[in-house]
Amino acid sequence: MSNEQTEAKAALFATRQARVAQLRRRLARAEHEFLLVSGLPNIRYLTGFTGSSGYLLVAPDFLVLYTDGRYDIQARAQTRDVEVRISTVSVLLAFLEDLKKRRIRRLGFEQNRISFDTYQYLRGELRGGRFQPLNGLVEKLRMVKSDGEIDRIRASVDLNSCAFERVCHKARPNWSEARLASEIEYQMRRLGAERAAFETIAASRERSALPHAQPTVQNLRRNALIVVDHGAMLDGYASDMTRMICFGRVDQRQRELFEAVREAQLAAIGAVKAGVRAGTVDRSARKVLKKFKLEKEFSHSTGHGLGLEIHEPPRLGPKEDLRLRAGMVITIEPGAYVEGVGGVRIEDVVAVTNNGCEVLTKTPRHLRVL
Amino acid sequence: MSNEQTEAKAALFATRQARVAQLRRRLARAEHEFLLVSGLPNIRYLTGFTGSSGYLLVAPDFLVLYTDGRYDIQARAQTRDVEVRISTVSVLLAFLEDLKKRRIRRLGFEQNRISFDTYQYLRGELRGGRFQPLNGLVEKLRMVKSDGEIDRIRASVDLNSCAFERVCHKARPNWSEARLASEIEYQMRRLGAERAAFETIAASRERSALPHAQPTVQNLRRNALIVVDHGAMLDGYASDMTRMICFGRVDQRQRELFEAVREAQLAAIGAVKAGVRAGTVDRSARKVLKKFKLEKEFSHSTGHGLGLEIHEPPRLGPKEDLRLRAGMVITIEPGAYVEGVGGVRIEDVVAVTNNGCEVLTKTPRHLRVL
Repeated sequence: MSNEQTEAKAALFATRQARVAQLRRRLARAEHEFLLVSGLPNIRYLTGFTGSSGYLLVAPDFLVLYTDGRYDIQARAQTRDVEVRISTVSVLLAFLEDLKKRRIRRLGFEQNRISFDTYQYLRGELRGGRFQPLNGLVEKLRMVKSDGEIDRIRASVDLNSCAFERVCHKARPNWSEARLASEIEYQMRRLGAERAAFETIAASRERSALPHAQPTVQNLRRNALIVVDHGAMLDGYASDMTRMICFGRVDQRQRELFEAVREAQLAAIGAVKAGVRAGTVDRSARKVLKKFKLEKEFSHSTGHGLGLEIHEPPRLGPKEDLRLRAGMVITIEPGAYVEGVGGVRIEDVVAVTNNGCEVLTKTPRHLRVL
Repeated sequence: MSNEQTEAKAALFATRQARVAQLRRRLARAEHEFLLVSGLPNIRYLTGFTGSSGYLLVAPDFLVLYTDGRYDIQARAQTRDVEVRISTVSVLLAFLEDLKKRRIRRLGFEQNRISFDTYQYLRGELRGGRFQPLNGLVEKLRMVKSDGEIDRIRASVDLNSCAFERVCHKARPNWSEARLASEIEYQMRRLGAERAAFETIAASRERSALPHAQPTVQNLRRNALIVVDHGAMLDGYASDMTRMICFGRVDQRQRELFEAVREAQLAAIGAVKAGVRAGTVDRSARKVLKKFKLEKEFSHSTGHGLGLEIHEPPRLGPKEDLRLRAGMVITIEPGAYVEGVGGVRIEDVVAVTNNGCEVLTKTPRHLRVL
């Protein structure tokens, strides 16, 4: 490993240590000493472990990661200052036995990251102990990204844009929606993405009016609106972009629909700034769509946070009181869906700053005619 | 729609009706009238709805599907004899309001398909009512597949094999593991798969000894064992296959490892038959590996059910008492992982029959030299 790599790794471990310290302060404020972290992205955020199975015990002066035999080597290599316990039978059982040995009787858990089943099992086993739901402690930390995290999201966003460009050069009207989606995901992977952040949406003609259309064997065709919504995971961080494309030309009605959504999206981006409420950003998009009598055709919220997960807090819905903070990274993606005409959505990723925001997505947002 | 398509659709709806009727009988045996189904694959199994958000209320004489605006058109098109309720604010809230209107006070829920958060919220709102955990009712129905389902799994398995063949013809030793994985997933999609059933595993050299290796930028290289484990989702149904490939030749030790695992896999396949316990199948693989002093190098269970999900009951671990039944579809995938030497896993999908099993995977299981 080069000196530079060693330094980068040391910096990463220092960042994770700082996150754990911050979490411990918040735990102490909630009058807790111990927390069971069961959300895998939360475990990754705090320790660097990327396995698909694990529980993390956060204590005032130590961390223990419980996982299974598949991740023995990996867990030790990815973490530092974390005790790794490998279970051969059941990870939960290993956790419980360790708790008993350490005489830990009172424990917080992530109420949004545990199934009822697991909850019931642990509560039963911790008889007499106290097992208390805590809500989103790590998610709250994760909402505000460090500069390093914003850099990683920017890299994911750039890769995603590059995959889009490559496919725009190859796409043909006789491709199916499914083909378009598969080519985009293939290019993401070729460019180094771990995977698609979610199932790519590619929908043409009247199917563009379904906000969550699964790609079909239907051809893209000429002279129709085509919505393409895709994201990559790169180095653990998500990207998310929606663009409208078409072969040939679209009619006047569809062009107006596009322009209305574009205006709404620009208005929402213009409203983003540290201190502004999430609901205010959402309503600034709705206001524009109302002007075009399209407010009822906008059936979802304006955006969501993204980072280690494709959807994470904050949510940008009309009634969200939360105030944006510098370092939050969110999508801005208003849309309008008119049955029989088509649907339009335009989506960028932006990083909130004290003076407004930085739009991380570099792909031009105009209707792309191929 | 052609007559044939109309008939096929009618047959599908009849199948779903029969499933719901069977579920209602099981509910009645558990002294319940109402069940909240929250597992999406379970909702799909009972109604045909494929959206990513929804709850299904099963009552003695009606079904209600609650979902959000994104799935308005789709939910009505995919289901029959199901009341569809679209919520604009919260799907759970719509469900609760409907329950109150219908004066339903006692309700079973899927304990393995609900988060603690949702459970707590619903229990709080149903004050005075009774909200009771039920375990795996729909999963138990799903374990035994109909002929139609086995046909769909067979199609998914064939597609997956075809993707493997295509990539074997193109692959080069200087490809990275990640490139190999992305080419396989691309070919799946080109052949019509909705998506990969799980993140493709492609691991070369010492990394083949990690049973759950995430593909890296490391080259495949010559004269090394390469494990490839991938599956597709086609028409809702999963496939799953692991094969060993290499460029050039592998050494004596690696070849012996391969032969031991192949013998173990054949022994396990030979043990499959309706009436046999899942644990017996697992142990027949372990017995062979023990003969080669490799029993400690086999760190996972021999297989799992698959269908609408890539992992579903039954599980084929050493202590599983469940008796196999004709129509169950399972993977048989023993492996042995030796640090410093490499790992071998061979995996097929088989359908249990009264006389043994049908191996659905057609790809030859020998070490494929490219």
